Amino acid sequence: MPIVPEALRDLASSFEGRSIISMRDFSTDEILMILEVAKSFESERRPLLQGRILGSLFFEPSTRTRISFDTAMKRLGGQVIGFVDPSSTSLEKGESLDDTIRVVEGYCDAIIMRHPFEGAARLADDTTRLPVINGGDGSNQHPTQTFLDLYTLKKAKGTLEGLKIAFVGDLKFGRTVHSLAETMARFSPKLHLISPPSLRMPRHILDELAETGGGFTESTDLEAIEPGVDVIYATRIQKERFPDFMEYERVKNAYSLDASLLDKVGRNVSILHPLPRVNEIHPSLDDYEGALYFRQAHNGVIVRMALLALLLGACNE
Amino acid sequence: MPIVPEALRDLASSFEGRSIISMRDFSTDEILMILEVAKSFESERRPLLQGRILGSLFFEPSTRTRISFDTAMKRLGGQVIGFVDPSSTSLEKGESLDDTIRVVEGYCDAIIMRHPFEGAARLADDTTRLPVINGGDGSNQHPTQTFLDLYTLKKAKGTLEGLKIAFVGDLKFGRTVHSLAETMARFSPKLHLISPPSLRMPRHILDELAETGGGFTESTDLEAIEPGVDVIYATRIQKERFPDFMEYERVKNAYSLDASLLDKVGRNVSILHPLPRVNEIHPSLDDYEGALYFRQAHNGVIVRMALLALLLGACNE
Amino acid sequence: MPIVPEALRDLASSFEGRSIISMRDFSTDEILMILEVAKSFESERRPLLQGRILGSLFFEPSTRTRISFDTAMKRLGGQVIGFVDPSSTSLEKGESLDDTIRVVEGYCDAIIMRHPFEGAARLADDTTRLPVINGGDGSNQHPTQTFLDLYTLKKAKGTLEGLKIAFVGDLKFGRTVHSLAETMARFSPKLHLISPPSLRMPRHILDELAETGGGFTESTDLEAIEPGVDVIYATRIQKERFPDFMEYERVKNAYSLDASLLDKVGRNVSILHPLPRVNEIHPSLDDYEGALYFRQAHNGVIVRMALLALLLGACNE
Repeated sequence: MPIVPEALRDLASSFEGRSIISMRDFSTDEILMILEVAKSFESERRPLLQGRILGSLFFEPSTRTRISFDTAMKRLGGQVIGFVDPSSTSLEKGESLDDTIRVVEGYCDAIIMRHPFEGAARLADDTTRLPVINGGDGSNQHPTQTFLDLYTLKKAKGTLEGLKIAFVGDLKFGRTVHSLAETMARFSPKLHLISPPSLRMPRHILDELAETGGGFTESTDLEAIEPGVDVIYATRIQKERFPDFMEYERVKNAYSLDASLLDKVGRNVSILHPLPRVNEIHPSLDDYEGALYFRQAHNGVIVRMALLALLLGACNE
Repeated sequence: MPIVPEALRDLASSFEGRSIISMRDFSTDEILMILEVAKSFESERRPLLQGRILGSLFFEPSTRTRISFDTAMKRLGGQVIGFVDPSSTSLEKGESLDDTIRVVEGYCDAIIMRHPFEGAARLADDTTRLPVINGGDGSNQHPTQTFLDLYTLKKAKGTLEGLKIAFVGDLKFGRTVHSLAETMARFSPKLHLISPPSLRMPRHILDELAETGGGFTESTDLEAIEPGVDVIYATRIQKERFPDFMEYERVKNAYSLDASLLDKVGRNVSILHPLPRVNEIHPSLDDYEGALYFRQAHNGVIVRMALLALLLGACNE
Repeated sequence: MPIVPEALRDLASSFEGRSIISMRDFSTDEILMILEVAKSFESERRPLLQGRILGSLFFEPSTRTRISFDTAMKRLGGQVIGFVDPSSTSLEKGESLDDTIRVVEGYCDAIIMRHPFEGAARLADDTTRLPVINGGDGSNQHPTQTFLDLYTLKKAKGTLEGLKIAFVGDLKFGRTVHSLAETMARFSPKLHLISPPSLRMPRHILDELAETGGGFTESTDLEAIEPGVDVIYATRIQKERFPDFMEYERVKNAYSLDASLLDKVGRNVSILHPLPRVNEIHPSLDDYEGALYFRQAHNGVIVRMALLALLLGACNE
């Protein structure tokens, strides 16, 4: 079976040499093509990227994203070079990001980078002729996380259209949840935004969501999740976001999902979380068949295999 | 020549998917089978693990064990992903070991882990369907070190049965020496335990040894090593174990082996040390043909190749 | 086309098993052979080092050199093991360099090492039967940097003979510039040494240069670079070399090259820099076709592929 279905060949071929910087760069057709191609990588084990090298540049530590790309590249027979944290890099000697990228582009065939500054990935992409994948640039974008979230949703629900989704937790600081909400807005969802008052979804994203057909509601109470909801997407609530320790303790407990939730909202619900979790999801939910957060993390490898193969023109089999 | 001798085929096959957590999990037949299979890996260079990925999770730094597994996997054509120290992991964000393991099991085919807490490897093994190898869990177990010690002894002496072995140095804190002594007890050894009074072998291990046929003696003086001893197993004496600096200085010098030892105990003796050494073995012994500590370290790669191939079912050639 | 031209076969074969410790170890014929063989690696993509393992031991962090060797090895189908900084190594437990090398030689087929102490690479080479490559030992030598500098010069100028070269910047502390100047002295260059008074080329190197046919001049002023110069080799000026902060500020600006330079010295000049740069070369020069510093860094991979293949006897195709 071909990796790319006949009808998507041209669109897939157009990805050779492209970069993955922001979800906003992609048309809805392109997003759906990527999810379709990713399916093939559930079972693909040919060394499609043999002889290819991925430059993995982590200017900020990240175990999960880094290892996930590492795995994706190696499963396809490729190799990885780079650094896992910035403390041992030439940046410490005052080198500009520009220069680092221009050196590294002579070493590899594509670059995955994480950087603490917003816009760093776009800058890198402007600097090099190589495909650049944004593995997170500050609070801005983390598009491959969004692709794996979308893949997980589509696989669980069969469609992305018209889903009833509750986002729960810290909706203010999480780039994951911003990016997913914005992208889902293309598919006429019914969104329910549930957060403590101090961690509401930012105004500019609310404005974007208001323009879409599906609409959204906001509340501060976990009890407000309605029966029949298709998806609950929970996010990590970080202590360092709260100036008041007591406020953190209160919120932490108030936004903890457990198995009792299922009695209320029904067993059709899929539960996602970008991980790591702390108290947001009680282990009592782990055995529920709709608890998808670990499969979601595993899907990260599949989706990243697809993206690497597309950008490196290795899907034409 | 087949990797596994005909007579051991069934026993070897039964290792596919198993874990290596503690020496106590293995029957004597199983231990001997592993040492026999390891022999084949002295010369084995086929890429038996091509396409396989080892997750290498070091929650505590370790150069030697980590690199040894890295080498073993790569010599067999496999790949390695993971992290070399915990400071850049999600654990810092409060993630449980359970969750880390459940994420990583989606990335790889087997896990080697080192962790500062006793029992961590067993917990990981209970969590995942993948084979888990304990690369050291606190002061508890480090079974692959024991397997390489056994391999080195068997290769040097031709048998593990009835050996006269002197353990020298810090016998209180070294998991290496505990594990080896307990395992050797199955082979009717004559054990001589030589340590400073404050660093004696723990009572529960002495009790175990007392139950075996071979028996043991204890002393505090290096001079007590008897002529005709088959093996001296020296261990590192760590400054941080001594509250009194002067006591450390005295012991450090009193337990230093040098070439003059050979005149007394004879040149049949094999000298082992898990390395790194500081003052326990004088370099004047390095050229002695029975000084096996470097070959012992090298055997670590061979034994780990065998274990990886067995757990991943790649020995059926 | 063969990797090694017919006429150089014997010389190239003699490199199997050799080490790369200091430029002084190599005859001029050997140096030219290496540069000739390196040419083949501009396009070589066969997995000549499949099944081989490079031990990469960085007792001092270095992103560029480390990644460059990593890339070279992996492009040739080989694998890499080792450590990227010393903080997690057994050295912290008091292990001698000797012992570390004797353990690691059982894991790999060749060793690249960087170490903070002068002479460390030579010591390692005396310890092991494996080829050792010096990736920088304190302020002493960094021969693979010199080989890539030479490769870049020869490719740009067609010859190494009789070149007019200006060395600019910190000529006192840079091992790169010492090693290159000494080696170029074999090719009758006209050298112009331009530095602040406090950062002049050391006396013992000046003495060596004085003995060569080409000769050298010294000055403190960037304006002294003459029209028609073939090469400007700029070096990083490090703040920590100046006890007086104001002195650093003055020098930093006085030794900054920019595009206006070309009007004066002509567009025949090639500009090299070992990177990372800070203020020594203004970005306005980056688009100049003679600005070779990024290509120079990329040549590092090519030259290191050639060296690894030569030392491991993989060039006999």
